[in-house]
Amino acid sequence: MNITNRKLFFASDYMEGAHPNIIKRLVDTNLVKSTGYGTDEFSESAKERIRKACSCPEAEIYFLVGGTQTNATVIDALLPIYQGVIAPDTGHISLHEAGAIEASGHKVLVLPHTLGKISARQIEKMMKEYEDDRNHEHMVMPGMVYLSQPTEYGTLYTLQELQEISQVCRKNKIPLYLDGARLAYGLACPQNDVTLKDIAKLCDVFYIGGTKCGALFGEAVVIPQKGRIPGFFTIIKQHGALMAKGRLLGLQFEELFTKDLYEHIGESAIVFANEIREAWKQCGYRLYFENPTNQVFCVVENSKLPKLAERVEFGFWEKCEESHTIIRLATSWATTELDVKELIRFLSTL
Amino acid sequence: MNITNRKLFFASDYMEGAHPNIIKRLVDTNLVKSTGYGTDEFSESAKERIRKACSCPEAEIYFLVGGTQTNATVIDALLPIYQGVIAPDTGHISLHEAGAIEASGHKVLVLPHTLGKISARQIEKMMKEYEDDRNHEHMVMPGMVYLSQPTEYGTLYTLQELQEISQVCRKNKIPLYLDGARLAYGLACPQNDVTLKDIAKLCDVFYIGGTKCGALFGEAVVIPQKGRIPGFFTIIKQHGALMAKGRLLGLQFEELFTKDLYEHIGESAIVFANEIREAWKQCGYRLYFENPTNQVFCVVENSKLPKLAERVEFGFWEKCEESHTIIRLATSWATTELDVKELIRFLSTL
Amino acid sequence: MNITNRKLFFASDYMEGAHPNIIKRLVDTNLVKSTGYGTDEFSESAKERIRKACSCPEAEIYFLVGGTQTNATVIDALLPIYQGVIAPDTGHISLHEAGAIEASGHKVLVLPHTLGKISARQIEKMMKEYEDDRNHEHMVMPGMVYLSQPTEYGTLYTLQELQEISQVCRKNKIPLYLDGARLAYGLACPQNDVTLKDIAKLCDVFYIGGTKCGALFGEAVVIPQKGRIPGFFTIIKQHGALMAKGRLLGLQFEELFTKDLYEHIGESAIVFANEIREAWKQCGYRLYFENPTNQVFCVVENSKLPKLAERVEFGFWEKCEESHTIIRLATSWATTELDVKELIRFLSTL
Amino acid sequence: MNITNRKLFFASDYMEGAHPNIIKRLVDTNLVKSTGYGTDEFSESAKERIRKACSCPEAEIYFLVGGTQTNATVIDALLPIYQGVIAPDTGHISLHEAGAIEASGHKVLVLPHTLGKISARQIEKMMKEYEDDRNHEHMVMPGMVYLSQPTEYGTLYTLQELQEISQVCRKNKIPLYLDGARLAYGLACPQNDVTLKDIAKLCDVFYIGGTKCGALFGEAVVIPQKGRIPGFFTIIKQHGALMAKGRLLGLQFEELFTKDLYEHIGESAIVFANEIREAWKQCGYRLYFENPTNQVFCVVENSKLPKLAERVEFGFWEKCEESHTIIRLATSWATTELDVKELIRFLSTL
Repeated sequence: MNITNRKLFFASDYMEGAHPNIIKRLVDTNLVKSTGYGTDEFSESAKERIRKACSCPEAEIYFLVGGTQTNATVIDALLPIYQGVIAPDTGHISLHEAGAIEASGHKVLVLPHTLGKISARQIEKMMKEYEDDRNHEHMVMPGMVYLSQPTEYGTLYTLQELQEISQVCRKNKIPLYLDGARLAYGLACPQNDVTLKDIAKLCDVFYIGGTKCGALFGEAVVIPQKGRIPGFFTIIKQHGALMAKGRLLGLQFEELFTKDLYEHIGESAIVFANEIREAWKQCGYRLYFENPTNQVFCVVENSKLPKLAERVEFGFWEKCEESHTIIRLATSWATTELDVKELIRFLSTL
Repeated sequence: MNITNRKLFFASDYMEGAHPNIIKRLVDTNLVKSTGYGTDEFSESAKERIRKACSCPEAEIYFLVGGTQTNATVIDALLPIYQGVIAPDTGHISLHEAGAIEASGHKVLVLPHTLGKISARQIEKMMKEYEDDRNHEHMVMPGMVYLSQPTEYGTLYTLQELQEISQVCRKNKIPLYLDGARLAYGLACPQNDVTLKDIAKLCDVFYIGGTKCGALFGEAVVIPQKGRIPGFFTIIKQHGALMAKGRLLGLQFEELFTKDLYEHIGESAIVFANEIREAWKQCGYRLYFENPTNQVFCVVENSKLPKLAERVEFGFWEKCEESHTIIRLATSWATTELDVKELIRFLSTL
Repeated sequence: MNITNRKLFFASDYMEGAHPNIIKRLVDTNLVKSTGYGTDEFSESAKERIRKACSCPEAEIYFLVGGTQTNATVIDALLPIYQGVIAPDTGHISLHEAGAIEASGHKVLVLPHTLGKISARQIEKMMKEYEDDRNHEHMVMPGMVYLSQPTEYGTLYTLQELQEISQVCRKNKIPLYLDGARLAYGLACPQNDVTLKDIAKLCDVFYIGGTKCGALFGEAVVIPQKGRIPGFFTIIKQHGALMAKGRLLGLQFEELFTKDLYEHIGESAIVFANEIREAWKQCGYRLYFENPTNQVFCVVENSKLPKLAERVEFGFWEKCEESHTIIRLATSWATTELDVKELIRFLSTL
Repeated sequence: MNITNRKLFFASDYMEGAHPNIIKRLVDTNLVKSTGYGTDEFSESAKERIRKACSCPEAEIYFLVGGTQTNATVIDALLPIYQGVIAPDTGHISLHEAGAIEASGHKVLVLPHTLGKISARQIEKMMKEYEDDRNHEHMVMPGMVYLSQPTEYGTLYTLQELQEISQVCRKNKIPLYLDGARLAYGLACPQNDVTLKDIAKLCDVFYIGGTKCGALFGEAVVIPQKGRIPGFFTIIKQHGALMAKGRLLGLQFEELFTKDLYEHIGESAIVFANEIREAWKQCGYRLYFENPTNQVFCVVENSKLPKLAERVEFGFWEKCEESHTIIRLATSWATTELDVKELIRFLSTL
């Protein structure tokens, strides 16, 4: 294959293995013997680092394998059986987890999103409407809030937005849970004003995504207040989410939280995403909407898709009128400058 | 640490990383880009090799991360809501999966084990008693059979035993599911007369264990008859058991099924386990029972446990009268001759 | 209490006991001994009558106690674990069953309603969008359709509408389930062109409501095609929905299906509802919308509610702008002419 | 049918309708209008009477329809998802509720019974073994205790036994739940020393059985400590266990708790059961075991069963060796002296 014709991969941010540091560590420690199920020293050290990064020395930390698994386990652990989870209608748990939340018995109570986000006011209104409904005892009680940061649309909650949501949750005594599958790409944005420490202060539970942010796999669940979820280890096991060789998760997060790697690992992806956004616009295309993270949403004429697909792997987002399609290009920590340049050059020929 | 005093690890068969071939492959392919969720070429190639090894060219193969997850997903997929799963009372699903089967709504219908095994006759009797019970419509219908090979006691079903069980299942139109978490250690036993091909012929679903048999993690679910479980991909996702970077599972099984690695990877563990059994007996200890695989169960006076624990990591099995304890030593593909020699020398000094 | 000031009850259609025939039968048979769980002769006779009324001599019939219970049991029985149920967003299962469907593991996939109804076209579109979605294996598969006749808004599907929906369902191989909690009030409408026989021909499962239609309690599940739901008796038991003294259900439906009682029992309620609708309009009020059955929805100024509430028990439906409220008045088989006259006279003074 | 040859019904204690007082009340109140879902005055009055009978003025009381439903709802409400319920292996929830407990996600942790009973010592041992097990976080945590009084074997816990069990539960901080499906027959026994007040003092939740004790249907759940189960009304609805016309349950329990009816309604059944036991023995038959309540278990030669069955409806219990069968005869509040005399006469001719 001629180098100038090789495929350019921008379909998602989970197409490669892991950051070289992680691979190196994996190789170096391969025959070290350790105990199972996250009781090992790698995991302990990783937890300590995460506690520090989040400024919550008492936090309980658990490592799970993937995002859907983490969401289903945490939500099932937080909700009594008669309560449901509030989420944006675009939330990953609402649409793309194959009913994992419902499979554990809970309804997802959706709110209409604005670019993937919901507001404190919407949540407050839902809580009030529930309270005011004379039949509310016949209805699912809203029992917690699910957000993602960045959202499925690549947008970010501002610190003020998160503070307001947290306040509404605390006023209504319902926990706030934040899905950080792509958190590194949020942290790496110049526009972002929400730190790990903020999240730890404002949320009852959140997870720091590894799979899409430099790890082979793995998500770190952080429960800032110790003892907040009784029996959580057993609940993880019951959900089939407990890894036998927990060390594999431990060592990956140990690396990600060495020398602030996690807070910087998304930076190049953000730079490249911005370049790609600029290029689309330069070429006369319309972005479906602006967002500051590693996902680029662009409106393309259907007639141009075959040529694009020949050279570029991208994601279909949705139809846009009869004649156009919204596509998604994602960059990641592993995206190379060379590929981005090739892509931009190619776009100009589309 | 003086080499002669270093700790000897025999607590389990999941204390290390992975077989060097797997690690090498992981390193080599780290930055290769591939599609997600098991649609990649590594996975396709691994599936093809497993189909060959099992002589079932039509088989559907799915890669999951861990054993409890696999059991819960397969059993939930196979059973209608009004049926339960027959299992030995010592079965992993009966005791040590935190109620994962019940969490998905199904009762585990236990039969008393004999060294971890149940018989065709017991299953037949349970089916008949259910049928004969005038109130059986008020009871959970036995809807499938769960076995493990090797069992939790390290014992093996003979080909004839499996054939009889399979026959009873087919006669009663209930699927037979085999948990092969430690299958490599069964295949490596001289006493074993059950091949992968036999298992594929006799079972409706089974899984080939990776986590304990040379992989970092991963279990390969084999469904010999294509289409046997409608919607299984979605069910995996719903159970939080679908890995984003499915390639990681694919490449591990590709390696395990290159040059028959899987069928031989357990051999040294079996040799070492036999040497350890012999050593215990030589030293005057009683084995709790004999078994041919990589787990050694020995009866030790309680007074000797502290000294043993100082040098050796082992597993507690259960109390045995007031004064003795049954302990478990496990070998693995990663156990070294040096460690076994040290252990044997140390046992003679206990 | 002065008769002219006595309270007028129009809050719901389940405020009284049962039709006198049923009470008489209950008294007459009270000490007759019969076997339990619906195996009695009353139940057998009732089933035979319903089969005749539906023209489906092979139908399986089961008697359950209440509507939510029936919906949850039938839907859980019809859906494999990876599928959800399509319903209007106003469907009883979507809003007012406390998450009973989700509690058994299934997502309710809502479609926007038009006066409580959804159309064949909407269903077809949802099926197609699911099929066309490249990620559909990560989503809940639409696996059946739930309708109610009359709907929660008191509207009726026409025969043609039902035929079209049934056709879409059969084309897509998903069952159609109809909730007939208030079916008698539909059958009693002059505008209605859908018979029990039509329903039996077009649906895979439906239930004939007793609780709101003359019985003390009870809903008759009809499965026109014998054997359509394996294990349904056990599933009923598992859902806690099997009545020990099943005869109580049997004898009620026996009475309801004697001399076509069920098909006529709603007639007076319809006449009275129409009179009330007319009266509201005469008094210058706006009906929220027109519908032909036993529920009347009217828009009332908030300032008038206290006076109304003093004399009349009614149901709150929802707010309507700041200054008005939509209220619901329901008539039933037990509503008396006297009460309706009093109500109409009182409305003119409001 | 010749009166001397008419069938004698002793198959169960739910073969008839209801106590005449209940039927009369049902007739008298049939057209009274009341609000739904247990918010009516009948229910309120019934609750007040039960609170008095139990000497717990703060108790929350809920009326459900049947026993399996009640058990599944209460147990699901009491247990967090990672816990199971301790029960005798003969418990109704273990065997004859079609997996309703597992369907809501919980394991039944069985203890071997002694004539249907388990002891405080057994429970304590199970709790301790769980605590001591090094792998207990991988296991289902025992989270509550389920008993029935009388048991499925018709035996009774003594006050001391119940006190000891309650003490163990409180020490281990797990709730004690008592299934009183046949409670009236226990209360009516001369040997019984456990009152409703004792039960209310010793249990966290219990139910007073109506279905088998004089009602058409209905079980009264008593929660002595107000607020013990948050969201219980919604949980009842979610389990499909909320009756629309809750008044029907209310008025039945109102009657049962008028003039101590409930505490005496089982008395004749006990007298008759004792006469039948005596008769069997007189005729040279062996009782399978003695018990003081309304169920009689007798060992009969298989060869005599056809003749017995011709005249008497009885229950099969289980096989007893090759040649004999254990049968069950049950009396009830509705059993007549005439029938008992006929039965005894007939037994002497068997």
